[in-house]
Amino acid sequence: MLASQVTDYPRWFQDVIAKAELAENGPVRGTMVVRPYGYGIWELLQEAMNRRIKATGASNAYFPLLIPESYLQREAEHVEGFSPELAVVTHAGGKQLEEPAVIRPTSETVIGEYLAKWIQSYRDLPLLLNQWANVVRWELRPRLFLRTTEFLWQEGHTAHVSAEDARAYATRILYDVYREVMVDVLAIPVVVGRKTRRERFAGAINTMTLEAMTGDGKALQMGTSHELGQNFARAFDISYLSREGRRELAWTTSWGSSTRMVGGLIMVHGDDNGLRVPPAVAPVQVVVLVVKDEAITAAHAIADDLTAAGVRVTVDARADQPFGRRAVNWELKGVPIRVEVGPRDLAAGTATVVRRLRDSAKSAVNLTDLTSTVGAALDADQAHLLSEATAKQSARITAVSTIDEAIEAAASGWATIPYDAVGEEGEDSLAESGITVRCLQRPDGTLPTEDNEQGLTAYVARSY
Amino acid sequence: MLASQVTDYPRWFQDVIAKAELAENGPVRGTMVVRPYGYGIWELLQEAMNRRIKATGASNAYFPLLIPESYLQREAEHVEGFSPELAVVTHAGGKQLEEPAVIRPTSETVIGEYLAKWIQSYRDLPLLLNQWANVVRWELRPRLFLRTTEFLWQEGHTAHVSAEDARAYATRILYDVYREVMVDVLAIPVVVGRKTRRERFAGAINTMTLEAMTGDGKALQMGTSHELGQNFARAFDISYLSREGRRELAWTTSWGSSTRMVGGLIMVHGDDNGLRVPPAVAPVQVVVLVVKDEAITAAHAIADDLTAAGVRVTVDARADQPFGRRAVNWELKGVPIRVEVGPRDLAAGTATVVRRLRDSAKSAVNLTDLTSTVGAALDADQAHLLSEATAKQSARITAVSTIDEAIEAAASGWATIPYDAVGEEGEDSLAESGITVRCLQRPDGTLPTEDNEQGLTAYVARSY
Repeated sequence: MLASQVTDYPRWFQDVIAKAELAENGPVRGTMVVRPYGYGIWELLQEAMNRRIKATGASNAYFPLLIPESYLQREAEHVEGFSPELAVVTHAGGKQLEEPAVIRPTSETVIGEYLAKWIQSYRDLPLLLNQWANVVRWELRPRLFLRTTEFLWQEGHTAHVSAEDARAYATRILYDVYREVMVDVLAIPVVVGRKTRRERFAGAINTMTLEAMTGDGKALQMGTSHELGQNFARAFDISYLSREGRRELAWTTSWGSSTRMVGGLIMVHGDDNGLRVPPAVAPVQVVVLVVKDEAITAAHAIADDLTAAGVRVTVDARADQPFGRRAVNWELKGVPIRVEVGPRDLAAGTATVVRRLRDSAKSAVNLTDLTSTVGAALDADQAHLLSEATAKQSARITAVSTIDEAIEAAASGWATIPYDAVGEEGEDSLAESGITVRCLQRPDGTLPTEDNEQGLTAYVARSY
Repeated sequence: MLASQVTDYPRWFQDVIAKAELAENGPVRGTMVVRPYGYGIWELLQEAMNRRIKATGASNAYFPLLIPESYLQREAEHVEGFSPELAVVTHAGGKQLEEPAVIRPTSETVIGEYLAKWIQSYRDLPLLLNQWANVVRWELRPRLFLRTTEFLWQEGHTAHVSAEDARAYATRILYDVYREVMVDVLAIPVVVGRKTRRERFAGAINTMTLEAMTGDGKALQMGTSHELGQNFARAFDISYLSREGRRELAWTTSWGSSTRMVGGLIMVHGDDNGLRVPPAVAPVQVVVLVVKDEAITAAHAIADDLTAAGVRVTVDARADQPFGRRAVNWELKGVPIRVEVGPRDLAAGTATVVRRLRDSAKSAVNLTDLTSTVGAALDADQAHLLSEATAKQSARITAVSTIDEAIEAAASGWATIPYDAVGEEGEDSLAESGITVRCLQRPDGTLPTEDNEQGLTAYVARSY
């Protein structure tokens, strides 16, 4: 059925996505069709993210898909970074366009244009915007969820009176929104750090990142938050009249997280039996499995109780289809809990509870205790997934002191290495082995604020 | 400030959108930037719609933005209808594409391709999908919210075993989702009917519509639900094995509603003082207006009470800015209720409640009654908006019996006329006066099920 993770991890990943009915390739190369089950996970994730973004004071808005080609050219590094990936509309309405329009690969430029209009005085700052949108980046080696030509994401764009304010806000997004959603909702431990100059977003003065470890020991960038300095403010003339009556350039940030997080969820939690979905984002937290037709009424009563307790439940009443096949299928889909209800259980006043996130441990539970038992198990198993993933991650991070050792360690996991022993030249030689510095941290785990800080730890790894 | 509705309605519409900070033109002609206040209305509307769509059993999914040009060509009427409006990506990733990709103007074709894969047997039916997405249709005469080159919408796509099932579902969407949201949430009365052959969606066998009356007596199509018959099933081979073991073509539907509904909201409810937002979709239902600084603490206490009661509140504490200008601005934004709090009110133990949706009627309310009074007013005023709009609509519909009379009546409102007196030729001559048949109804208000039914009433009007 599924390829095993050890034998062929990329194939396992593809198999899980197909068999759990998460997504498929779209007809145009590199695009993705997100099926209802995959989209259900995305919706719950989106909701968790959206609520936290709003709690920081940002408002949602929507900017156009199509951007005049000339906008991108206003910020030199930005256009250099994104040009190779652009999809260009040259014809529309039956005619050739006077100026080609690009499909947004990200929206700094178009949003910059409007921030410039809307911001007049220091009273208008900070201006905190977010949008949920699709973007297109033409990828050479597309992969479902991880790197698709079109993907869904949120992109935040803010303007501030000072570098300090901008940095504080970008950092708040990093920790209070992204890290919290990844850890508390997706149960994915992430290493938070600063990107090296080489790995920085095109046009930023600082990119902060959250990196997750996949089942094959690679790194997956789960989200980034950028200080853009005054680069875009200068390019788009985002300026304001200060309290002292001077015209000043604003300081901007941008930050994004995407459907790639669903790829992270699959890779971090999945096993050889398929997907394992953290209860917090499980479209189906509990499936009540009818073993034989006689149990249908009881199954629905159980489901009703669970629904009333706020659990997302579905009833699988297809008793005409082989029980084993159905059970395997729910296992594949990673539904956290199965409640199996058959005539024999019912006679004993029990149901069988199977916990997918605990090696499918089974236990007979009295019907009277079922709702509370299931509720407690969902909470416990959410926490269990996180501690399991955290332990796995720690076990595969090796502290080394030379580049050669780092290359060796990165064959099966991550390495930490003093960045002073790597440097920008060291990054080039790592790159020859397909390895990158994922991020930099200070010894105490906090983030460096300058490019040239000494004594930093670099996390290096192969990456998706 | 604002143009008046009577003097220059189109200008009034533009002014309201600009001054209430709902939206702006995007940089590429015909595109739209939806600002936070406008997007806030859209989010609430979306939520109300999404909940009802899910209640019919449909699931959300996501299909790609880019569609191979050849897909559209598979359904002859469909490609003919949409070709003139397509935006085409010819270059991507620095190269010319082998096959140009169009930006979806609607997704029947790409979704059809996947329905064909996913549907094998009658057990897979009905298959009920919906997506929230952006689409692009190159418009010759774009207008914010009403007709933009890119717009946001939901598009539902379903497949069924029979024509009857498909019709029943498309009709359920029409009434239980669209009509309910428009009437109960947006407080917009709509006439529900069947489109004539001439006005039908490209590729449908039946288009059902909901039409609202704008402040200048025109019609605005607020949403449509289509029976697609077996046209797309044939073009994309969406077939299933029936219970009897025969291979059968499925019957499909599609249905959409968009950001145009926000345009409807503005036009149906707005007045010469600006926007008026129905409480159900008001991002700010109540603004607590601090008259003088001394009242700030009391204002926040009032806001906290209202928030605790589930009301969406904001505090305007800018006491250093002229009170009158602030009040006018909230009026412009159409916030349903202002609670004005000044030292004099507080001394009397009251606050002034101003109801925007009741000609800004003012009353002094005891602070102890404030939360309940405001809650009741929000409910009452939501209902009031609907009955007011319904009365206005009825007053401007004239029953006529000839085409000439219909043309005359349509100069300032709608006409109803026996469709037998119009016919397809009559539609052509109406069209010369810029008038269309908006929809057909049976005498009892129900929907005709065939193109050739006799004794139908036609609603005719100018339209947006």
